[in-house]
Amino acid sequence: VVDTYRALVEYDGTLYSGFQVQANRPTIQGELERVLERLLQVPVRITGAGRTDAGVHAHGQVISFRADWSHGLIDLQRAMNALLPSDIAVRDLTGMSPEFHARYSAVSREYVYRILDSAVRAPLWERYAYRATQALVLPAMIEAARWLEGTHDYAAFGQPPVGENTIRTVHRVCWWQSRTGWDTPKDTGAFPLTCFSIEANAFLRGMVRRIVGTLLMVGQGQLSVEEFRAILLAGEISRAAPPAPAHGLCLWRVRYT
Amino acid sequence: VVDTYRALVEYDGTLYSGFQVQANRPTIQGELERVLERLLQVPVRITGAGRTDAGVHAHGQVISFRADWSHGLIDLQRAMNALLPSDIAVRDLTGMSPEFHARYSAVSREYVYRILDSAVRAPLWERYAYRATQALVLPAMIEAARWLEGTHDYAAFGQPPVGENTIRTVHRVCWWQSRTGWDTPKDTGAFPLTCFSIEANAFLRGMVRRIVGTLLMVGQGQLSVEEFRAILLAGEISRAAPPAPAHGLCLWRVRYT
Repeated sequence: VVDTYRALVEYDGTLYSGFQVQANRPTIQGELERVLERLLQVPVRITGAGRTDAGVHAHGQVISFRADWSHGLIDLQRAMNALLPSDIAVRDLTGMSPEFHARYSAVSREYVYRILDSAVRAPLWERYAYRATQALVLPAMIEAARWLEGTHDYAAFGQPPVGENTIRTVHRVCWWQSRTGWDTPKDTGAFPLTCFSIEANAFLRGMVRRIVGTLLMVGQGQLSVEEFRAILLAGEISRAAPPAPAHGLCLWRVRYT
Repeated sequence: VVDTYRALVEYDGTLYSGFQVQANRPTIQGELERVLERLLQVPVRITGAGRTDAGVHAHGQVISFRADWSHGLIDLQRAMNALLPSDIAVRDLTGMSPEFHARYSAVSREYVYRILDSAVRAPLWERYAYRATQALVLPAMIEAARWLEGTHDYAAFGQPPVGENTIRTVHRVCWWQSRTGWDTPKDTGAFPLTCFSIEANAFLRGMVRRIVGTLLMVGQGQLSVEEFRAILLAGEISRAAPPAPAHGLCLWRVRYT
């Protein structure tokens, strides 16, 4: 019997050329399909909720696939985790009704971007955070980011898939500062990380990283809040900053109804 | 003119056979000495405040060395960071009086150990945290750890360097739960990390990891708080748990008067 499955997938994207399968390159999709084919003895095509770029991480990527598996869910999850490389894992596996589709059924995606404010290299933080060498003015970044919320044309920050427009709905943005879990409760000095999250119904290609890149210019005093807003309204990708580096970005969560 | 320097060194210990130099193996000391020899054109011997084991990380390792460098401190720090591999960095460099010695001048060392409570593999957290597959009872671990504070014979948890005894003074221990900086402010569920810190005048070889390993047995209900205390008092290393895995441990800070 062929059933539909939903898997919650976490990965460290450092060594991968992104989610989407490409010939002769390591990809998340490629690894997952290789493992499923080995377990099910037939080619399996998976669908991901978000196509993360090369080097982008995921805590809450969601994939769907159809498979004829006669053992239990737990057995399939364990078998996948035993065969997947150590930087990819299936955190949860659920049987779904046949209409479920990881991409089309998703109602929103949330990404988190982490920035380390440090003039000097910091080996313990740099794998999962972008190091900004100039000090950042957080209130300006908070104010600018609020203009992103709502339903807008985001052509300034990314390109749509073929046949789609550039209108999206950003449900929520948030900037915060954070400790890392290694800092002890008595470390009361500066917070090592400055973080940004953005939740939208869907994103254009490169949208989160271009938004962060442009907000960083605001934080560094190279753009005013009004100029940020003008870039959004003008809708010309050439006016936005280049995408912020991939390794600071993480697909945090995908919501379904 | 030969001057004495103190460097604050951060490293990701994943790829190294520990701090202390060993023939034909990558070590933190080996990398630092190689870089200093290249810059100063003479062999340089460095001293570290703590000899971290293979796979252990450091946020605040301190080293001292003597060198004849005619340019500025900032230039030496930049040159070192340019030549060091990306997983080792000099976070700060200071000129010191000739009596300064990273090990003998230190008055205390603080280590942090991070535990991820998860039955399933978690690629984003496991590089810098040990994954405990059984649920942990935090109050029992807190209670047991308090018996460590004070001046005691810690022979139960490690071996001393040649010519030293096993008496040390533990200034402070702390257990806490933490977010990671990726979790957003609206993530109000379980904390992903359980962390432990311990500050002492000095540590025996393997002491922090054996203490954490034994406290984990308390957290998992395999030892009572009284049994933990009896292990400490008995002073027999064979009664302690094996050392907890290295990758959860980080030399957080070294204090000088």
